[in-house]
Amino acid sequence: MNSAVIVAGGTGERLGLEGGKQLALIAGHPVLYFALAAFAACESIDEIVVVVHPDRIAEYTATAVDPLVSPKIRAVVGGGMTRQESVLAGLAAISAHADVIIVHDGARPLITPALIARAVRKLLDDDSADGVVVGHPSYDTLKQTDADGVVRLTLDRDVIWAAQTPQAFRADALRAAYDAAGREGFSGTDDASLVERNGGSVRMIAGPRDNIKLTVPEDVALIEGLLAARTEDGARE
Amino acid sequence: MNSAVIVAGGTGERLGLEGGKQLALIAGHPVLYFALAAFAACESIDEIVVVVHPDRIAEYTATAVDPLVSPKIRAVVGGGMTRQESVLAGLAAISAHADVIIVHDGARPLITPALIARAVRKLLDDDSADGVVVGHPSYDTLKQTDADGVVRLTLDRDVIWAAQTPQAFRADALRAAYDAAGREGFSGTDDASLVERNGGSVRMIAGPRDNIKLTVPEDVALIEGLLAARTEDGARE
Repeated sequence: MNSAVIVAGGTGERLGLEGGKQLALIAGHPVLYFALAAFAACESIDEIVVVVHPDRIAEYTATAVDPLVSPKIRAVVGGGMTRQESVLAGLAAISAHADVIIVHDGARPLITPALIARAVRKLLDDDSADGVVVGHPSYDTLKQTDADGVVRLTLDRDVIWAAQTPQAFRADALRAAYDAAGREGFSGTDDASLVERNGGSVRMIAGPRDNIKLTVPEDVALIEGLLAARTEDGARE
Repeated sequence: MNSAVIVAGGTGERLGLEGGKQLALIAGHPVLYFALAAFAACESIDEIVVVVHPDRIAEYTATAVDPLVSPKIRAVVGGGMTRQESVLAGLAAISAHADVIIVHDGARPLITPALIARAVRKLLDDDSADGVVVGHPSYDTLKQTDADGVVRLTLDRDVIWAAQTPQAFRADALRAAYDAAGREGFSGTDDASLVERNGGSVRMIAGPRDNIKLTVPEDVALIEGLLAARTEDGARE
């Protein structure tokens, strides 16, 4: 069984969009709606748990969940202070029979069913992998600095990837990694970093360039434009 | 004297836009036009050398240089096979009296006079700096992989910057770095990496999020949208 946790914000939102960024409207829908729709439409996904701000469960349910009328959406649960706590709340709500758990940022609306399926397939096809992370080789020259912004090192961009979501994991590896992080008080910037730290093997796969995360208010117009362009082009990954 | 080298492509273009990406039209102008306009309008810039594909000097001159009618534009010269060779061709064409040399990608059209001035000022205000690079702290979780894409390490994102242009340098430090790179056969992914390798001190400063580089054809629509939004908002950095 393949279970998805879509993380659409806890109580620690910082971005100043009224109502949390996942409620910013894109083509008349909250941002979260688009990621949920992609997961609901993906044949590789059996169930979905959505994690939202605990004060806004009813609002997200009405605007982003109910319109999809998807039997796959198992629960809408409240998140915590950090992304990591929110994912943990999602993990608690998915089926105990999950073999694969796919975590996705609700603020990445341009995810497609094809890309979700590809991440799951890659994980299942590679016995040595505990996790598969969608991302892309770095487009930028990256520099490591000291705390004052003075460059220490220009990194070799050929082996640096930007990690996005979805991130697909063997369920036991992800649960064990969260248990270990909880015991050790470790916090990572993504789910894979917890699995890596717990000794798991994680692989990167390249996704399309437009799988961006809504981060600042200006991104709303950008995402609307990309969604409109995609509709014109027809379906594609 | 502060001299700018705007690099708009050599003979090694890879992107498949007809005529080189700097000839893609944005609001009726080639992409290069916008960066040139910003440098021409910047009070901190005294002269500008433009580096283009050697077969297209007349075309770029007619479409991107002449319409600006700027006395600051000293020369339009042909570039080489690599970006590094193209910058070197630009360095050969600027005044021997340059104290500061600012290098910029012609494919970053959203650069503003205010940001160029800020980079130059930061360099001049910091005696310990040989170069100042505009960029931003990494938005992404970054992972270092092996050649097969298996994650070795999740980097500490707080000290990783994405480097863009403009990059401003003390002229002697940049010329010495290019000389050394030529002798050693070293190629870097940006100009700062040559200065760093030659023992120079480089500082990062944060630019606006929209200082993107036209890289794939889809970026044309994105850049048009960002330029239109900027016009609506009025001038800003």
